[in-house]
Amino acid sequence: MENMNLNKHISGQFSAELEDIRNRVLAMGGLVERQLEQALDALGSLDAELAQKVIEGDHKVNGMEVAIDEECTRIIAKRQPAASDLRLIIAITKTIADLERIGDSCVRIAKAAVEKRANNQRPLLVSIENMGRHATRTLHNTLDTLARMDAEAAFELHKQDAVLDKEYEGIIRQLMTYMMEDPRSIPEVLDVLWAARAVERVGDRCKNICEYVIYYVKGKDVRHTSYEDMERDIRD
Amino acid sequence: MENMNLNKHISGQFSAELEDIRNRVLAMGGLVERQLEQALDALGSLDAELAQKVIEGDHKVNGMEVAIDEECTRIIAKRQPAASDLRLIIAITKTIADLERIGDSCVRIAKAAVEKRANNQRPLLVSIENMGRHATRTLHNTLDTLARMDAEAAFELHKQDAVLDKEYEGIIRQLMTYMMEDPRSIPEVLDVLWAARAVERVGDRCKNICEYVIYYVKGKDVRHTSYEDMERDIRD
Repeated sequence: MENMNLNKHISGQFSAELEDIRNRVLAMGGLVERQLEQALDALGSLDAELAQKVIEGDHKVNGMEVAIDEECTRIIAKRQPAASDLRLIIAITKTIADLERIGDSCVRIAKAAVEKRANNQRPLLVSIENMGRHATRTLHNTLDTLARMDAEAAFELHKQDAVLDKEYEGIIRQLMTYMMEDPRSIPEVLDVLWAARAVERVGDRCKNICEYVIYYVKGKDVRHTSYEDMERDIRD
Repeated sequence: MENMNLNKHISGQFSAELEDIRNRVLAMGGLVERQLEQALDALGSLDAELAQKVIEGDHKVNGMEVAIDEECTRIIAKRQPAASDLRLIIAITKTIADLERIGDSCVRIAKAAVEKRANNQRPLLVSIENMGRHATRTLHNTLDTLARMDAEAAFELHKQDAVLDKEYEGIIRQLMTYMMEDPRSIPEVLDVLWAARAVERVGDRCKNICEYVIYYVKGKDVRHTSYEDMERDIRD
């Protein structure tokens, strides 16, 4: 923690730049969160117009990624950050890559909503919608953890992804049964399956972002480590 | 180009560090390439033992990602690189993230090979194997382009991913027909479908790496841009 404060005060302008970039990441996160909500709304209500809006909105997410990435490179070159400032910038460049990919998942969900569906497929969409709400909450909490740079909360959220994975497995089983009972529905059910997969991937991306929060706060790279090791790093 | 040479000679030690990190990325690429070949061999011959070897080998890929990433951060903090040196390090940190994800795809392909399969599913596996060979060549050429930092070759490779996408679409259609004709096969065919999807994702990751090569050589972030714009950036 000493490092953080030490480095922050070398230059007031530098502090302002870091603050600005943090705000831009959170703004990007907010945009991605809205994209996810709208993609799921579009799927739940089979609203092709709203789905189209999500698909077209993805370029804004992409643009934010590129712009923030460029700013991070500029800050590294100009300010030559070290210690926690450098970790912050690295955590940010990784976070925006995952946010951009959540944006891609939203497009995939929205695409499943563009196709006209038979009414008897509603039950399938409802189960995805529930899982989607869970993913939306996870993303919301992840962004909150990122805003507060709270390593403990990041660790707890990381562990909770297993619940989303279980929900996903349940949906896949359900979709399989559906296809076996009505093989003509296979092409359409596969679209739903891709959407379910996209929702599940949102959880994985959130887990990644949690890892970057822990990296920033604790200075430990916890990717690919066990929960025991991770917990030890957090409590340190 | 001037910048590249200028910065490289400021410090002989620094040059050596950059060279070392480049070699380590190429070594990681070589490992991932072997993982992909073996995962596809395992799938083609339904060799559960080889598949298990691939699954267990993934931790080496993960370990290389973490170690190279740490070294990149150390170099940024210690050497305060600018211009092309900084671009090289940024391109490397992004590349290893994609290589690590190709490693995950290999695990997914290998997992499809672990399951015992009925002999009548061989034709399905053969079509994936062909697509897999194509993906392996793409990965090989991408690593070659990365070794030579050849922006023109990266651009050409990037465009060729569309061919792999077409192959993938063909396989999905084939798998759908198969499931509709024999609904009892659905659970097993879905495993194959996930493997096909994993192979297709390898192509996407290679495209990303091509973009980082162009970013390093040309100083232009060509993500999310049209081929016309990309071509203009390359020819500049």
